[in-house]
Amino acid sequence: MRQSALYTKTRRETPRDEVSKNARLLVRGGFVNKEMAGVYSYLPLGVMVLRKIENIIREEMNSIGGQEVYLSVLQNPHPWKMSGRWNDSTMSDWFKTRNSEFGLGNTHEEPLAYSMRYHISSYKDLPIYVYQIQSKFRKELRAKSGLLRGREFIMKDLYSFNKDTAGLDTFYEKCARSYKKIFKRVGIGDKTYFTFASGGVFSKYSHEFQTINDAGEDTIYIDEEKGIAINKEVYTKKTVRELGLNEEKLIKKSAIEVGNIFKLGTRFSEALGLTYADKNGNDIPVVMGSYGIGLGRLMATLVEVLSDNKGIVWPESVSPFKLHLIELGSGLGKNLYNTLKKNNIDVLYDDRDITAGEKFTDADLLGIPWRFVVSPKTGKKIEIKKRTSKKAQIISYDEAIRKFS
Amino acid sequence: MRQSALYTKTRRETPRDEVSKNARLLVRGGFVNKEMAGVYSYLPLGVMVLRKIENIIREEMNSIGGQEVYLSVLQNPHPWKMSGRWNDSTMSDWFKTRNSEFGLGNTHEEPLAYSMRYHISSYKDLPIYVYQIQSKFRKELRAKSGLLRGREFIMKDLYSFNKDTAGLDTFYEKCARSYKKIFKRVGIGDKTYFTFASGGVFSKYSHEFQTINDAGEDTIYIDEEKGIAINKEVYTKKTVRELGLNEEKLIKKSAIEVGNIFKLGTRFSEALGLTYADKNGNDIPVVMGSYGIGLGRLMATLVEVLSDNKGIVWPESVSPFKLHLIELGSGLGKNLYNTLKKNNIDVLYDDRDITAGEKFTDADLLGIPWRFVVSPKTGKKIEIKKRTSKKAQIISYDEAIRKFS
Repeated sequence: MRQSALYTKTRRETPRDEVSKNARLLVRGGFVNKEMAGVYSYLPLGVMVLRKIENIIREEMNSIGGQEVYLSVLQNPHPWKMSGRWNDSTMSDWFKTRNSEFGLGNTHEEPLAYSMRYHISSYKDLPIYVYQIQSKFRKELRAKSGLLRGREFIMKDLYSFNKDTAGLDTFYEKCARSYKKIFKRVGIGDKTYFTFASGGVFSKYSHEFQTINDAGEDTIYIDEEKGIAINKEVYTKKTVRELGLNEEKLIKKSAIEVGNIFKLGTRFSEALGLTYADKNGNDIPVVMGSYGIGLGRLMATLVEVLSDNKGIVWPESVSPFKLHLIELGSGLGKNLYNTLKKNNIDVLYDDRDITAGEKFTDADLLGIPWRFVVSPKTGKKIEIKKRTSKKAQIISYDEAIRKFS
Repeated sequence: MRQSALYTKTRRETPRDEVSKNARLLVRGGFVNKEMAGVYSYLPLGVMVLRKIENIIREEMNSIGGQEVYLSVLQNPHPWKMSGRWNDSTMSDWFKTRNSEFGLGNTHEEPLAYSMRYHISSYKDLPIYVYQIQSKFRKELRAKSGLLRGREFIMKDLYSFNKDTAGLDTFYEKCARSYKKIFKRVGIGDKTYFTFASGGVFSKYSHEFQTINDAGEDTIYIDEEKGIAINKEVYTKKTVRELGLNEEKLIKKSAIEVGNIFKLGTRFSEALGLTYADKNGNDIPVVMGSYGIGLGRLMATLVEVLSDNKGIVWPESVSPFKLHLIELGSGLGKNLYNTLKKNNIDVLYDDRDITAGEKFTDADLLGIPWRFVVSPKTGKKIEIKKRTSKKAQIISYDEAIRKFS
């Protein structure tokens, strides 16, 4: 894409109403627009990053048997009354319409389990794994962490439906492995820990994926060798012992929760009448689990974790473009741009009529992993530099095509 | 995909609470689930159709220079107060949160024009074309038309920002042509008319794309030769004369509005202070237009227009699968299924253990354009039949691969 055609402009000044690093950089880069506290719109560059994150998550969810749905935002009170979660006293973060006719979806156990009654009747129908990628809503009183904690946020939520807890347990482990792959693919695998957190009625622990970062609201105790951690909320001598860990080896860190997985058991299926007939014709409640990843939060985490004092650093897997071609001199990059495009290389071409300094500053802010510079000095060659490196090297057009296509 | 793995089940019985053909067939086929009147969730087959419609629209919007964004659902009252559309007396179909803190987006002129103030300052920044595909919300008192008129619905809305009305006019025509392509690609080009409808402050007419169908809420007067129509709301002798049409040639029909385009002029830019500096440094209000297509409504229109008494008939361009492979005899279709998949042919494989009659009935209901049958009778060959045809023919595996890959 030609940068002169991209409608968003970068901002030099830090937005005064943002305290979080992720929102400051994403707003300055023109990835998002702040509509109000905790509510952001995604602008073209932000949509590109979002789609790449979305596709990675979709691939992984499909590979573990997930079927994609798209549930409504407006919530019919009926199934929520059945489960006892309609009242604000039970679920305090509901947004509801003016006369409380409807809720705005903040999670989807109830409507999905309710609609499953049409599709599950026999043990032969199970297991079923269903997910969606969609906007959710939550009343957050303090929404100061940018895209880390929003009142409106995009989430992938998967729900599992199994015959029994053995089936749930197997899928739960499978989904945990798939989450590890996702966090690895988006570039934070080495900083993200499988973390024991508080469970519910049906299991002692739930599990979170926590990415080490000072902007995180959670505190975790990490066993680096085993690659697991304990959330402060369940951190006791007893927990440490139960998990076979050594208290002295554990390192205390702040972390951002980038994913969580829950065993729900029959909490919702019993309340909503979601049962199946087993081989003997007995009615058995379906065993459920739920598995979430916030996409905007993940994007914000990448910014918090990977950016430097010059700007964002996108991993190649989610970067809006693979490389950023900067011409110093009008039209100097045009041939190379056309050649790159012909070779299906995803490139942002800075053809704007501004100074070299402004272009470099913008390139660092936008965080595309590779920078190409063509100028009268480079002649028929290209100066290429990684966003994370200080050293540049000179290569020919042919080498560039070979290396990047 | 193996049909035994698809979690949704078809329904024999017509849902008692649905009066519209589109909702009856889409619910029976398991494409959507009704959450409440005017609110539908998309199930896996529905998501597949939705994505294909979405991609066709996205391609066409990108090809006319559209840049994709994803604006928030929650609406900050501020820009709406500036334009005078926050009050329910002005805009009666708002959903608002309990204490009217926020609105739920029903259109996005205000927030988008407001955020554009950061990105438009000079005439050099224009034109800009921005679109999104996203859920919208509208209080509909009577929501009885299934997915044709929802309280929550998925929409593509594009907004144009030009220097002057000449620029707007040029883009308006371009977008109209692109809409024609879209409706042609999804299979209703021959039934859809460019229709003159009531304008606003800034232009005499707006334009709708109306698809002839008895389920439509609009009445239009068509000139079949010229391929244009007049909406009843502006149908007068004067309009007929102005458009150079002959009253006697016009045919009155019911129609579904599948798209609309509006010239907004400076209605919003003036209210929101969205101006640019021209060559002489004068502040000029930006000239806007807006362009909508409802995706769920489009899906419903395809069902209303193309289905027969046996079920849905999807055009190949939006069908969840290209072909439906039915085996009569356990495992008989397995080799062919694997071969088709290896050749990247998009196939739903009915490997379920049910009767041939049930399989054929489901295939007709689901409406995939091609049906393949393998049975002990067909041996090493395949009986293929178009959904719209009564005649089948016998072809070899090799021919099938050639014809469908």
